[in-house]
Amino acid sequence: MFPLILDLASLKVAYAEGATPLDLVEVVLARMAASQDPAIFITPTPANRLRAEARALMAHAPAPNSLPLWGVPFAVKDNIDVAGLPTTAACPAFAYDPEVDAVVVARLRAAGALVIGKTNLDQFATGLNGTRSPYGAPRSVFDAAYVSGGSSSGSAVAVASGLASFALGTDTAGSGRVPAAFNNLVGIKPTPGLVPNVGVVPACRSVDVVTVFAATVGDGTAVRRVMDGYDARDPFSRQATPVALPTNGLRIGVLDGAEREFFGDAACEALYDAAIDRARTLGATLIPFDYAPFRQAAELLYNGPWVAERMAAVKTFLETHAEHFDPTVRTIIEGAHAYDAVDAFEGRYRLEALRQKTLAEWSKVDMLMLPTSPTTYTVEEMQAEPILRNAHFGRYTNFANLFGYAAIAIPAGFDRDGHLPAGVTLFGPAFSDEALAPFADAMHRALGAGMGIDRTATLPEGSKVSEADDGLVPIVVVGAHLTGMPLNRELTEAGGRCVRVCRTAGDYRLFVLPDTDPPKPGLIRDLHFRGEGVEVELWRIPAVAFARFVQAIPAPLGIGKIRLDDGSLVSGFLCEAHAVAGAEEITMLGGWRAYVHRPRAAE
Amino acid sequence: MFPLILDLASLKVAYAEGATPLDLVEVVLARMAASQDPAIFITPTPANRLRAEARALMAHAPAPNSLPLWGVPFAVKDNIDVAGLPTTAACPAFAYDPEVDAVVVARLRAAGALVIGKTNLDQFATGLNGTRSPYGAPRSVFDAAYVSGGSSSGSAVAVASGLASFALGTDTAGSGRVPAAFNNLVGIKPTPGLVPNVGVVPACRSVDVVTVFAATVGDGTAVRRVMDGYDARDPFSRQATPVALPTNGLRIGVLDGAEREFFGDAACEALYDAAIDRARTLGATLIPFDYAPFRQAAELLYNGPWVAERMAAVKTFLETHAEHFDPTVRTIIEGAHAYDAVDAFEGRYRLEALRQKTLAEWSKVDMLMLPTSPTTYTVEEMQAEPILRNAHFGRYTNFANLFGYAAIAIPAGFDRDGHLPAGVTLFGPAFSDEALAPFADAMHRALGAGMGIDRTATLPEGSKVSEADDGLVPIVVVGAHLTGMPLNRELTEAGGRCVRVCRTAGDYRLFVLPDTDPPKPGLIRDLHFRGEGVEVELWRIPAVAFARFVQAIPAPLGIGKIRLDDGSLVSGFLCEAHAVAGAEEITMLGGWRAYVHRPRAAE
Repeated sequence: MFPLILDLASLKVAYAEGATPLDLVEVVLARMAASQDPAIFITPTPANRLRAEARALMAHAPAPNSLPLWGVPFAVKDNIDVAGLPTTAACPAFAYDPEVDAVVVARLRAAGALVIGKTNLDQFATGLNGTRSPYGAPRSVFDAAYVSGGSSSGSAVAVASGLASFALGTDTAGSGRVPAAFNNLVGIKPTPGLVPNVGVVPACRSVDVVTVFAATVGDGTAVRRVMDGYDARDPFSRQATPVALPTNGLRIGVLDGAEREFFGDAACEALYDAAIDRARTLGATLIPFDYAPFRQAAELLYNGPWVAERMAAVKTFLETHAEHFDPTVRTIIEGAHAYDAVDAFEGRYRLEALRQKTLAEWSKVDMLMLPTSPTTYTVEEMQAEPILRNAHFGRYTNFANLFGYAAIAIPAGFDRDGHLPAGVTLFGPAFSDEALAPFADAMHRALGAGMGIDRTATLPEGSKVSEADDGLVPIVVVGAHLTGMPLNRELTEAGGRCVRVCRTAGDYRLFVLPDTDPPKPGLIRDLHFRGEGVEVELWRIPAVAFARFVQAIPAPLGIGKIRLDDGSLVSGFLCEAHAVAGAEEITMLGGWRAYVHRPRAAE
Repeated sequence: MFPLILDLASLKVAYAEGATPLDLVEVVLARMAASQDPAIFITPTPANRLRAEARALMAHAPAPNSLPLWGVPFAVKDNIDVAGLPTTAACPAFAYDPEVDAVVVARLRAAGALVIGKTNLDQFATGLNGTRSPYGAPRSVFDAAYVSGGSSSGSAVAVASGLASFALGTDTAGSGRVPAAFNNLVGIKPTPGLVPNVGVVPACRSVDVVTVFAATVGDGTAVRRVMDGYDARDPFSRQATPVALPTNGLRIGVLDGAEREFFGDAACEALYDAAIDRARTLGATLIPFDYAPFRQAAELLYNGPWVAERMAAVKTFLETHAEHFDPTVRTIIEGAHAYDAVDAFEGRYRLEALRQKTLAEWSKVDMLMLPTSPTTYTVEEMQAEPILRNAHFGRYTNFANLFGYAAIAIPAGFDRDGHLPAGVTLFGPAFSDEALAPFADAMHRALGAGMGIDRTATLPEGSKVSEADDGLVPIVVVGAHLTGMPLNRELTEAGGRCVRVCRTAGDYRLFVLPDTDPPKPGLIRDLHFRGEGVEVELWRIPAVAFARFVQAIPAPLGIGKIRLDDGSLVSGFLCEAHAVAGAEEITMLGGWRAYVHRPRAAE
């Protein structure tokens, strides 16, 4: 009745076909009991509480799928509050019993989702590997010798092994992305400030983000939409307008030259190159960019004053409970003593100077695609070199929240032995979260490596992410705005892109408007006319530019709806009828371009 | 030939009438020689250099007023580099000889302006009073017993006493505003990041802003426009879209209740109340707001970790030259030792939490109007209590740059004895610099207190700031979008405002479109028709909403240009001619409203 991977689309189908959340809860409880990995959960939801919550949901919203996440089981990283379950942050002495859900948990529960438990993590979310916890080290679902990635270790493993449909992580350095890569999952890392952190134990409060592990980009995006929204109680929560990305002609920045560092992992590099090929096949233009300023910012996060944020988060507790800390975590946090307030501000100056350098790189590309992690290690290897090898994992992640980017980590396939997975991450500017999703989803679907532990699963059509609203609006141009014509620069300078050359429906007529400079045609619909249509171009331009553009159009021209020969109705140039009385008709030429380039007698 | 106050409009007239920059230079040199205040300049430009620069300008751009600031004399605060003159920051031991101009100075000189000298300041721009300098304390131009305000003390006095047309200041806590208030001047404080700080000695690098002292808002705005523009060498330089403010129905937040603090200065309070009355007379709605979160942020700037930015700016120099510091400035900067990196981040958390509280206040208002300084003091009083009384000056200024606002300080008249001036400051959101100017100018013009030391001067018409481009675009609506009609909410929900009810020109005809829901009319221009015009409404809506709006208009309607009965052409609803063939004509009713409300037989 329920598939191995509990993706949202499959769950919806199962519920529509008669399964109930109570059925699902029993399946989840059985799977949890049978799990091979004892380190996933710190506190599973007690079985009877989980059953009771499923029953309560069915009483409150009896119709199947009548809430956005109706009966969807999810796991919660144990630095995010769930009322009635302790929050430990993987430090037993730190544990407390929250009385209310974190805001994100409350929103997800209100949407019908069911918490199945609190998951293991690198203590205080300080790490990218998953071995820094007194509750054990969760393992990659593909090889128990290997780390799961962290800090959101248990959350990723819970989803990848079919215990939860999705799971919440948190991401400061890369904790919502690295475990996705190591477990063949999608990791949605929202723009900092998009999802409120109320009820989340801080790591670095200015750059912490709640994330989603999911089987597909569509699933993760659906969950993120439920969590989104300003909350004034979080000092870093922001109200922002979504940022658009182009939907075609996408330019993607990729690693180049000396900045290509995989720490000897040729298999991982090959998977990155294969992802580049997939992106190209999907129509993107791949553009090498200089990763140096991003890397230099990444290095600030652990080797700079930002560790003082980790100290700020646990200062009082550390004073009295130093011996209860994981030794590596404690060493990192106590590094904060090396920095005074001058260092903190100088770190910010350095970051802002690097941001200026990144802007030169961003001017060449619309998004970045980087390896999520350049390599992976066994638990044993990680424990032998806990700080250096952790830093390797963060090579391509640490800069993201410092610069405020949106990111989506997607699977990139398995290495040559077919043994372990790797991932790539797409980065977009702040608040491009929605705009990143369609291409990320297309990349994931083009890969064909299943979902989580089920490497043969087909990604359900039902979770496909449709083309984003890119913030551009369509406009049909007929005359002086056509490519190569005198006013075309008004479109290109405004950031417009030509989508295609096409024709109007057959009942349009084209006239040469007298006394216009530059010369312009007038397009008129005549219901009694049957022609071949008029050649036009379909453009897309930014909404703000569109407004400026329409305002500048001189009478007798205007913008109305034009029917194209495919039957669609699109905004485009029309002409007031009075202006073409007596004007020269050129409909028979097929379009304005033919008129402009008509053969003429020598003058 | 040249007036006492060298405002830009008067200078332009003088130049147009035959005066030359060389003539002006002689006048300025004579005035400087005759100046009563020996503390204005640290380094005046040598007379022969100034003459040479005037001659060079006339050789390079001979036609009068052929550059935006052709032959305009300006003074530069001595923490901003001018090539060839030392930069001291009012600390002789710190002095250095810059080889290149600060970016803002280079831009102003390229626009034709002439540097007349480097002006005195509170050492390292640390102060709001003007007494913390080994070069002496400049005095209020209205009473030499009183402080000039600071830290941009010499710059304000130079403009107010007619030595310069404008002067550059810098503003961290309020140094570009307080001296404007004390010298009957305008102080333009740009949004942090709008004007690059390359070549400026930092005070608090993350919140420093170069400002303009000028005789009028128009002058200061013209100068600011020349200085604007991204420069990647300044880590805090930003590329940003201007932010609009409403041009009518303006809501202005004013002090209320316990937050009204003038430290016993009833005269200053009365001038603030008079400014409120003027704003009301100009059509604004005055709305009491809670100043508490702004005040709490203001207190962070000196009593919080931000003093570490002052330390970061001079650390190396302080280590070896502590004895060369002004004792008060040194005490303040050495306060940085009390803060570690944890404190620095916790200060930021506190600031961001306060920002969230300010958003609730901003939701009620479009701009804020506060006293620039709640009171003033004599030099003697200031020296007796140098830190406390300085803090009084900053009561209503210190928050502005921490929150990233734009601000314009304007004169508010003279106290009851007609003795000393006070000011008010208008604050708008980040990058509302352009949008703030028209109302600030209208307030200044409504005051009638002259310019600088010339209290009887009339503000020249030539420097009047015209109504801002408020980011709204005009649209004429004819039918279902009229006020009270079914689709009117599309305009109001988009943030649109009705400007007026008016009529089209006489050659438009109105038809009832068949089969539309809700019912809609079609407006057609017929050059052979002579009628009374059709009643329409002129609205203004945000550009982004306009694009959405046009995209949603169904055929056969569209947006073209409509001629109104005053002869203007404005974007508005038109109809394709084919759609009104055979439709009922209602032109004779005068408009759609009359048609909708026509008397009908009972059905």
